[in-house]
Amino acid sequence: MTTTNARVAVLSVGDELVLGQIDDSNARWLAQELQAIGAMPGERRTVADDRDALAAAIRALAATHTAIVMTGGLGPTLDDLTRDALGDVVDPGAPLVEDAAGVEHLRGWFERRGRAMPASNLRQAMRPRAARLLDNPNGTAPGIAARCGACEVFCLPGPPNEMKPMFSSFVAPALRDEQRVVLTAALHTIGLGESLIGEQLGELMQRGREPSVGTTASNGIVTIRIRATGAPDAARAALDASIAACSARVGAIIYGRDGEPLAAVVGRMLAERGLTLATAESCTGGMLGAMVTEVAGSSAWYSGGFVTYANERKIADLGVRASTLDAHGAVSHETAIEMARGCLARTNASVAISTTGIAGPGGGSDAKPVGAVYIAVALRAGAVYSRRFHFPGDRATVRSRTAHLALACARFALLGEPERALLWSESEAVRVERA
Amino acid sequence: MTTTNARVAVLSVGDELVLGQIDDSNARWLAQELQAIGAMPGERRTVADDRDALAAAIRALAATHTAIVMTGGLGPTLDDLTRDALGDVVDPGAPLVEDAAGVEHLRGWFERRGRAMPASNLRQAMRPRAARLLDNPNGTAPGIAARCGACEVFCLPGPPNEMKPMFSSFVAPALRDEQRVVLTAALHTIGLGESLIGEQLGELMQRGREPSVGTTASNGIVTIRIRATGAPDAARAALDASIAACSARVGAIIYGRDGEPLAAVVGRMLAERGLTLATAESCTGGMLGAMVTEVAGSSAWYSGGFVTYANERKIADLGVRASTLDAHGAVSHETAIEMARGCLARTNASVAISTTGIAGPGGGSDAKPVGAVYIAVALRAGAVYSRRFHFPGDRATVRSRTAHLALACARFALLGEPERALLWSESEAVRVERA
Repeated sequence: MTTTNARVAVLSVGDELVLGQIDDSNARWLAQELQAIGAMPGERRTVADDRDALAAAIRALAATHTAIVMTGGLGPTLDDLTRDALGDVVDPGAPLVEDAAGVEHLRGWFERRGRAMPASNLRQAMRPRAARLLDNPNGTAPGIAARCGACEVFCLPGPPNEMKPMFSSFVAPALRDEQRVVLTAALHTIGLGESLIGEQLGELMQRGREPSVGTTASNGIVTIRIRATGAPDAARAALDASIAACSARVGAIIYGRDGEPLAAVVGRMLAERGLTLATAESCTGGMLGAMVTEVAGSSAWYSGGFVTYANERKIADLGVRASTLDAHGAVSHETAIEMARGCLARTNASVAISTTGIAGPGGGSDAKPVGAVYIAVALRAGAVYSRRFHFPGDRATVRSRTAHLALACARFALLGEPERALLWSESEAVRVERA
Repeated sequence: MTTTNARVAVLSVGDELVLGQIDDSNARWLAQELQAIGAMPGERRTVADDRDALAAAIRALAATHTAIVMTGGLGPTLDDLTRDALGDVVDPGAPLVEDAAGVEHLRGWFERRGRAMPASNLRQAMRPRAARLLDNPNGTAPGIAARCGACEVFCLPGPPNEMKPMFSSFVAPALRDEQRVVLTAALHTIGLGESLIGEQLGELMQRGREPSVGTTASNGIVTIRIRATGAPDAARAALDASIAACSARVGAIIYGRDGEPLAAVVGRMLAERGLTLATAESCTGGMLGAMVTEVAGSSAWYSGGFVTYANERKIADLGVRASTLDAHGAVSHETAIEMARGCLARTNASVAISTTGIAGPGGGSDAKPVGAVYIAVALRAGAVYSRRFHFPGDRATVRSRTAHLALACARFALLGEPERALLWSESEAVRVERA
């Protein structure tokens, strides 16, 4: 591993983690963020809600690391012991003190919500005498920072929506290394397998190459990850050159960068052209609309849609013909196409996407097994394209793949490549003129 | 944590884990399997491919645990250092020895596959003098077991398909305790703060109580976690008694157990009564429908819904009056109520849920800040209830809380408590007769 200035341990606190009741997604996120600011993740430990064990872990990690980022154990209940354990290490034998600003924060938090503050929440304003509280804009639990010998200890709350902004506000500025940076870029693709992308990248993926280029796959999205290390200007130039090289080889299948959601990319394309979108969902049951409206500002290009889970709703809300459902079934090119057309007819959107499929676990047949899904995209100014996919995996996977590929189909339709070959696609696109 | 016979540390080895490049799914699996055999997971550590750091971790964990299960670092390459680190601890200064049976295993492995054995693979037959190899039927890397003082150390390969059967063959028989099991239960709640639930549970949460009772909060759901240790029958009885005690104190705010989704609970209630649901979503944009249809078999009680993100869709699809939108705005009791009523009018569902709010980051005002959300539940056989909530957090949090609380509101309406006080609720429920 590369040696850098700051070597940072990650210490996760909680019985539920040690017992494997929940995933420790914070630890992995922290490892990645630490690298992004030029720090190097050191040891990772997970310790139960046990004051002595926590204090021992803080002591041991402080002796071998520049900093410790702890998460969890800052709640208001008796099994939240991070405050006490930190006190045992940095100010042994002394009681915790009540932080006046922390009490203010708690009172304000509850006041703004018109709720009475339970007395137990006052525990959250306690800190070791030598420590300082860190403001938490998204929850009641303030963080705590303290020196332990040469090591800076940051205690952050466990809920990711509270922890992540506090990392950015307090930990990142303290540990960022301006001389030696680790710059990363992520190029996201959907619709091509990881091994094919690997072949296209070729020797760019060679071990030991600097910047390094690797691929990861998650939820159907294959991400090309590039990492450049060095002085800021040199690392930036090397990173940009590698981004260009990867993009040249992999092409338009790359839809976005650095966590940009596919829905945001589609939304930007729509907004640039003054177009709007509506959705007609069966097997995704609202998931496609949810992905679209996850994008802040999506109301500029998304008016809404229809969750037509039952056939009666497909007929009543989208004008799908009963005869079509009888002759071809709800899971068919014909139904997908009528759903998308009906969605255009009932709204004034310029583009409509429809989904209908067998998400499982039940409902499959030989002709239409679990995972068989039809996605249609209708352009008011053009044709309707429907294609059949077969997605492997369980109900959640089939639904998630469907929603993602529906957006990918819309993107390629907007790019003028509505029949672009895509992974999991089982057929040529069926094209019907005049949406 | 409770003391049991075997307290077992889990030590995961590898740069890729420390750097957050892959998830450590082994550690969570091991924590669960250890409990299933009556052992108690102790500390969990993740250490890079660094011989000295590994040796230090083994030494420290051996001093405080009955056993250590290590995974990873047994491959054939130079960065696989588990063997060497274990030797440094159990037989310091002595070289590793080549295990004759291990060499046989490797030769046989490659022979059966008609491949020549790379010389580097011979490293995998090396072990500390005082250790023994563990057979790996699914890969080249044998495991290693050794005593380290009073602690038994098991080193298993990292790939889950190799590690899991070896855990069952070697670790489970050595650590299984027939006399003493660990049983757990999780009771899920939504709509009451963690601190208030803690107060209601009172001395049930006292540290050291057996069974232990703790709480965790995630995504607005507060979970009561109960753990009973002891002889199988006694532990079961103690667990059941504690479940009953917690349920008696916290009451109907508990909606489900052991990972059961809130949508599945609402679905079961609907199905039992022969009722069906439809949804009318604005700020959740389809998320509520997606949560509902995540439940396999939901088509029995969910017909579909409307994503009416734009006002024009609220008017066209749900019959919300333009005058209502003009007078009160889209984010209001009046609109939420007309959305829910319109949803009943346009479908034949027995229950309709509507959501409308300011998810942010933009769009807030003094009267209706980001996080202000109205949720209405309309019962065809009864009244419509609307209430205003204020959810803290970012866009994703506000939307997720809204979808969860919408289901919670529907559940309490079905329980005959439509005006039940709920966390984040800012007002009394507004009741309108005749849905």
